[in-house]
Order: sequence, then structure tokens, then C-alpha cells
Amino acid sequence: MTKKITIALDCMGGDKAPDIVIKGASMVAEKNKNVHFIFYGDASLVDPLLQKYSIPQDRYSFVHTSETISNEDKPSVALRRSTKSSMRLAINSLKDGESDAVVSAGNTGALMAISKVILRPLSSIDRPAIVTFLPNMQNKATVMLDMGANIDCDADVLYQFAVMGYVYAKTVLKIKEPKIGLLNVGSEDLKGHDAVKNAAILLKESELANAFYGYVEGDDIAKGTVDVVVTDGFCGNITLKAIEGTAKMISGILKKGLSASICTKIGYLLASRSLKKVFKTIDPRFYNGAMLVGLNGIVVKSHGSTDEIGFYNAINVAISLVEDNINEKIMKEVQSSDLNSVTTPNSATTTSNIS
Amino acid sequence: MTKKITIALDCMGGDKAPDIVIKGASMVAEKNKNVHFIFYGDASLVDPLLQKYSIPQDRYSFVHTSETISNEDKPSVALRRSTKSSMRLAINSLKDGESDAVVSAGNTGALMAISKVILRPLSSIDRPAIVTFLPNMQNKATVMLDMGANIDCDADVLYQFAVMGYVYAKTVLKIKEPKIGLLNVGSEDLKGHDAVKNAAILLKESELANAFYGYVEGDDIAKGTVDVVVTDGFCGNITLKAIEGTAKMISGILKKGLSASICTKIGYLLASRSLKKVFKTIDPRFYNGAMLVGLNGIVVKSHGSTDEIGFYNAINVAISLVEDNINEKIMKEVQSSDLNSVTTPNSATTTSNIS
Repeated sequence: MTKKITIALDCMGGDKAPDIVIKGASMVAEKNKNVHFIFYGDASLVDPLLQKYSIPQDRYSFVHTSETISNEDKPSVALRRSTKSSMRLAINSLKDGESDAVVSAGNTGALMAISKVILRPLSSIDRPAIVTFLPNMQNKATVMLDMGANIDCDADVLYQFAVMGYVYAKTVLKIKEPKIGLLNVGSEDLKGHDAVKNAAILLKESELANAFYGYVEGDDIAKGTVDVVVTDGFCGNITLKAIEGTAKMISGILKKGLSASICTKIGYLLASRSLKKVFKTIDPRFYNGAMLVGLNGIVVKSHGSTDEIGFYNAINVAISLVEDNINEKIMKEVQSSDLNSVTTPNSATTTSNIS
Repeated sequence: MTKKITIALDCMGGDKAPDIVIKGASMVAEKNKNVHFIFYGDASLVDPLLQKYSIPQDRYSFVHTSETISNEDKPSVALRRSTKSSMRLAINSLKDGESDAVVSAGNTGALMAISKVILRPLSSIDRPAIVTFLPNMQNKATVMLDMGANIDCDADVLYQFAVMGYVYAKTVLKIKEPKIGLLNVGSEDLKGHDAVKNAAILLKESELANAFYGYVEGDDIAKGTVDVVVTDGFCGNITLKAIEGTAKMISGILKKGLSASICTKIGYLLASRSLKKVFKTIDPRFYNGAMLVGLNGIVVKSHGSTDEIGFYNAINVAISLVEDNINEKIMKEVQSSDLNSVTTPNSATTTSNIS
């Protein structure tokens, strides 16, 4: 019998919460009978939706709270003051062993700050990061981190990201020997700033030397030149959103053009199978669900502006991370790599807050 | 009578040089009778191509040199040693008033380093930058800088980029009141690192306060939220290439899908007008030609891997910059803005070298 998995859901985070949270959960509940939910949110808003989307009562429990964290809240303030917020209670449930993973579409900075304080980073990890994956030309996915948790990253921190991304690619994407690339403005040794140059030296001297491809550039993400692209949270967040924005623009032009005339509409019908594949490949909802990696517990961040399909996918990412025992594998890799020997206690970074 | 414009071309820079340089120039020569060229390159390679693409002899002069700068050359080394290179000679011709603009598809770092030493930055500009424009959802273009000339940028430098981008949008894209955005990981005041936060303060207190929109995120580039997106060269270069890579991936999937069966092929034929528009919108060749802005002279960088159509477009960018007197307008704006009062002599940045 497959193990029961309990997912704690922050019902109040995100632009279209709680509707898309409950609807997304109802879709998961229907497809995956092993999954149970704990919903955290405002009863006056959540209760009617639980009725509307008819999730069977034996598949969830519900904890009422009227406290929420908004996107405008500073992470430090959210951490100190919002001790009864839906997000905080969901993370508490993970700490207390009541749930196996948390999914939230709320304030990313607050989610990271609260998770770090409540769950604590994994041993040997200075800075948990946000890891996601994107489609590439190889019909595979490119794992990328950090997507915005750490604005300034020194070489030690980038090295730790490389280790975590490597395990993520191995575990979640089942890539046997993932190749790691450091995002830079060129492939030659002399390119880039000190952090990226020193991270390259660390990687070349580490247990991961064989997995280290070298520097990659922005277009290598879509090319799929490597399996894991490592960068700081400032550049990673901007790049991810630029990629999503480009995909959205192209799909917009395409859809508008294809409905322009009878002729193009017939053309679309005839080519619809191919075109639908394109739309699906570039639809960010199908890549929704970014893990906050490097924590004692599985926390998944959904896009704040996604819909129920996107949220459904984020929950499924959390489920597969639980099933894959990702954190156990990261710890194993951290212990077998020489991560302890290369990290220094002074690997200072600015933890930040992204949207 | 329209003024004669002379463009100096580095025939030896870029992956497919000198072929695409001469072919691109021949296309310009045919369409624009006011344009003349000075070709700098190896006679044994360039001469046969001048015959092959039959550019009329009264439309060009040719200067032989066997010295070239490769993409692997360090800018500092190229600057000191390659004094007879095709790139250097082309820039010299601009300095000497023999040409009105230079176009090169060669080593970007070397092009910037040599241009800075030979042409000098414009008065009040500490760091020339690379400015380009990208398609957006508004059927307009988003101006973006720096695309990779300056890896680390402090607030003063970002402020100068904003001024130059503003003039570029006004002059080249004829936008009456361009809006400026600072690229960041969120729109709230507390987001980002110190350089971007301090640049926002400078902009809010400057003559450009009304033109300053605030922070923008990666997806705002394609959305066209603002007309000018300002960022450092590290993030700008990576973001630009990520956008190009994404567009290339999508167009690849689309083309493959549309030729998959008889049915999709007929569909493509029927919808071809719309689909061709999509392909053209996302084709980087039509956005090729990035100005090295902030120099006493017009220098345009073509993508190293472009073809003759891309190079043709880069030459046309140079022509329009000459016709628009871009540098005169930048100087005027710099003088009318309080750029002098906000810049400090210590706005230290790392000038780098991108590919």
C-alpha cells in the first residue's frame, strides 16, 4: 500500500487565493487517493470553497485563522508578528510532523524567512535557495537556482547551490550524471565577477569536478547545455521572469495571429496538435512549483499569479519531493562531497525578499 | 540632397566573417545609395567576396590588414597589441573623421576597450554601455542597457545608463516621453541590492523624476511596462541571452511541429501570414545592432553569430544613429539634466568583456 502523504496548504497566499488553492487541491485529491490536506485559512472564505469544489471530508482537515501575510509585508516583520498566519501555521505543521510538505503561493521572502527560522537549514547549508526547472530544446528540463532567495551570493554559497541543484536534478528529474554550469557573461575563464570566478575554482577542486561543465550563458538555459544552472538570486529571479515574459509574449502574438481570419483559424485547426504542444511547452503553469531547497522540510513556492492548474502542479511537485526523499539524498550528497571543507562560516549573503 | 554617410566595417569580426559582413553591406548598398563603406580586413579573404557580392567600386574603399582580434583575446591585450587589427583601424577611421560610424561583429570587450581609449567617453559619462532594444507586447520595443560592458555597476553608473537610455528611446525609437524602469526582483522599495536602491533614490531626486516609473521585473521587459529598462552588464547580458534563447527554442519547437505531418503543413500554409509574423517578431536578427552608447562616436556591435540579414540590420542601426545625431542629443540631455551634480568621481565599476 502506498504511503499516505499530507500536504499543508497556505490557503491565503497568492493573487487568486483562496479559490485556486482549494480548486487545485480538489484536482489533486481526485487523481491521487494517497494525498491528504491540511488547509490553513479564513473559514468565512475557505469553507464555501471546500463545499463548492467538493473535496471529500475524510481527505482533509481545516484550521481556521484570520491572520494573513500580504505581499507587501517585510519578511522580518511577517516573521515576528504573523505568528498565527496561514503560512506560519502551515510551516509549523511541517515542523511538528503533522504534514510532509507545505505549498504556498504567498510572499516568497516571508515564506523563506519563516521556513528558515522554524525548520532551520540543513546541516552544512548556509543559505537555502529557490530551485525550479524550465523547458529546454533537448525535450528535457534545465534545473536552475537560486530564483530569488539570496540577492548577493559569494563563491561558497554558489558552490552550495551547485551541490543542491545536482542532487535535485538526480532525484527529481532522474538524470544519472547531471552537468552543472555557472551562469556568466561568457565562457572564458576571465569573464564575470569574483564570486562566479571563485565558485568555478571551488567546483573544479571539489568532488563535483567531473560534473562541472564550466560557465554557461543566458541562452544555454533554453539550449539545455547543462542540467543545472547556478546563479545568484538577483540574476536568477530576473532571468526566470524574463524567460516567462518572453514565452507569454510569443504565445500571445501566436494566439492573436491564429484567430485573425477564417483562413488562419482553419490553419490552426489543422496544425492544432503541434501548436497545442508549443503552448504547453511554454506555459509557465506546467513548470510551477519551486522548492525552497536546503531546509529541514519540504516547502514549495507556487507563483503568486498562477491559476488552479498551476497550483495543482505545485502540489504535485511537493508530492514527488516527498516520495523521492529529496532531503535525505541532499544530506547524503553533502556528506559524500567535500562541502564542509570548502564552506566558510563567513559566507555572508543578503537574504532578501522577492515577489 | 541627402548627406553621404560612411560606415567603417570590421570585416574580420564574428563567427561567419568576412562573408556575412560583405554580403550584409552589399544589401545595404543596394537599398541606400547615400551609404558608402570602408572595409577593413584581409585582402585574400575580402577581395573575392567584394567581387562575389558585386558592390559598385565607387561605393567603397578597402584597407588591407592581416591582423585580427579573436574572441579569445583579452580586451587589455587586444588594446595594447592589435594596433593594426581590422577593428582598431575601423575605430581609428571614426576618430579621424573618415567615417561616421563603425560596425563590428567581433570581440565585444575589445571593441569597448579600444573605443573607450581611441574615442573617449562623452563628457560626464563614466562608463559607456551597450544599449539594444527588444520586442514587447505593446507592438513597440523595449530599450535595455547595459547588455554587458560593465559587470559591476554602482548607483551613479546606473543613473547615467538611465539618462542615456532615455535619450536613445527618444531619439532612435521616437518615443516622446519615455518611461524608465530599474530592473529588480520586485516592485517594493525594500527589494534589491544597494546599487539599485540608491539608483532609484538618485532618479527620484533628478530631472528625470517624472520619467522614472520605479522598479520593474524580468517579465516587464516583454510586457513593455516601461520604454527603458536599466540594469548592470552582468544581469543585462544574461537576461538578453536568456530571452533570445527562449525565443529560439519556441520558434524551433514551432517549426518542427508544423512540418510534422501533411495536415500540419497545410495548416501552416493557411496560417502562414500570422505564423511568419511570429517568427519575425522573435527573430533576433531583426533586433541585431547594439550601440556602444556614451562614446564620442557611433560604434555598433553586431551579434557574433548572426548572418547577413542580421549584419544588414546592424548597419542600418548605425545609419539611423548617424542620421539622428544621437550623441549630440545625449550631450544636450546630459547638460539639461543634473547628471554632473549626482555623479561622483569614484563611481568605480569593473569594466569587463563579454561575448
